[in-house]
Amino acid sequence: MKLFDNAVSGNCHKVRLMLSILGVDYKTVPVNLLEKQQKTPEHLARHPLGKVPALEDGDLTIWDSQAILVYLGGKFGSPDWWPADAAGQAQVTQWLAFAVNEMFAGPAIARALLKFKRDGDLAGAQALAQAALAVLDDRLSDNDWLALGRPTIADIACYPYAGLVWEGDVALEPYGAVRAWLERVEALPGYVGMEGLPHG
Amino acid sequence: MKLFDNAVSGNCHKVRLMLSILGVDYKTVPVNLLEKQQKTPEHLARHPLGKVPALEDGDLTIWDSQAILVYLGGKFGSPDWWPADAAGQAQVTQWLAFAVNEMFAGPAIARALLKFKRDGDLAGAQALAQAALAVLDDRLSDNDWLALGRPTIADIACYPYAGLVWEGDVALEPYGAVRAWLERVEALPGYVGMEGLPHG
Repeated sequence: MKLFDNAVSGNCHKVRLMLSILGVDYKTVPVNLLEKQQKTPEHLARHPLGKVPALEDGDLTIWDSQAILVYLGGKFGSPDWWPADAAGQAQVTQWLAFAVNEMFAGPAIARALLKFKRDGDLAGAQALAQAALAVLDDRLSDNDWLALGRPTIADIACYPYAGLVWEGDVALEPYGAVRAWLERVEALPGYVGMEGLPHG
Repeated sequence: MKLFDNAVSGNCHKVRLMLSILGVDYKTVPVNLLEKQQKTPEHLARHPLGKVPALEDGDLTIWDSQAILVYLGGKFGSPDWWPADAAGQAQVTQWLAFAVNEMFAGPAIARALLKFKRDGDLAGAQALAQAALAVLDDRLSDNDWLALGRPTIADIACYPYAGLVWEGDVALEPYGAVRAWLERVEALPGYVGMEGLPHG
């Protein structure tokens, strides 16, 4: 299995974290985003949006970090990490959608603007980040995990950009339930960090 | 089964379309967005983001239109509409993520800005819409359907905001493969339209 990867991408970290927790062997192929390697014809054939990560497993290539989590959870970690029933899958998918939109538009963009010195609406992204953290905090006040009362790919999908939000100059202080959940994720057997996250 | 619904929402249309194709009986509960009924405590208990749609089935409530499609496809339409294997689910999930982000940030936002006279960056949203349509068109040039060579919830998730993109003043003319695919969706047994779509 081959992961087309970038070391500072939170979306790539989700996949590395899941692979590590599941104990799956894989090779990393670094994609240099500054050199626009993600926009080469070879990479666009793997990922039509020209982004990372993408995962190759034999003849199959999966793009989008949430889809890769579904694949890994279903192939190696079912039914614990990705359940087999429609109701369970739907409850996890809610938070995959939240990871695609709310966790990206707020936390990931605020971080990218500051860390990678990109142009954009920092105050707007920070406000969206706070709104996303408030939703997570509310959910996690009564629940140790986002879905199904146990760690699932929903938690893995939402974790990196929550843990990295401080790099977007958004404080985690007001979100005690989020901070406790981050620590629960970081205590999972097989947890790996990255720059900006514990043990990075 | 109860759908908390809004007649002009493309995300709600996805769910109505899937329910109709699958022949599932349900009741509609209209949510008046102008009156902010989506932000009442009752509705926030169903949908933590204060949006539509949400689906109630007995004790279970699912929010997010993609998650609802997973639920309906898994419960009533598996394995045709939502496959049972990890590889198939991952290939469909790629396009669910595309529906959450690319189809919303471009086509849905351009439409909302014009149709509902909201403030925002119309030219930016139209450019994102064209980029999203180009990705769809490329995919659909060699494939009748977005995933697995057959209609799945991936098509249902991406359909409404593609079909409604003209309301955002984005022309479908250059995207012949998208237009042919829209017609294939509209020919599916059980197809229902809405204002702005065929038979609406």
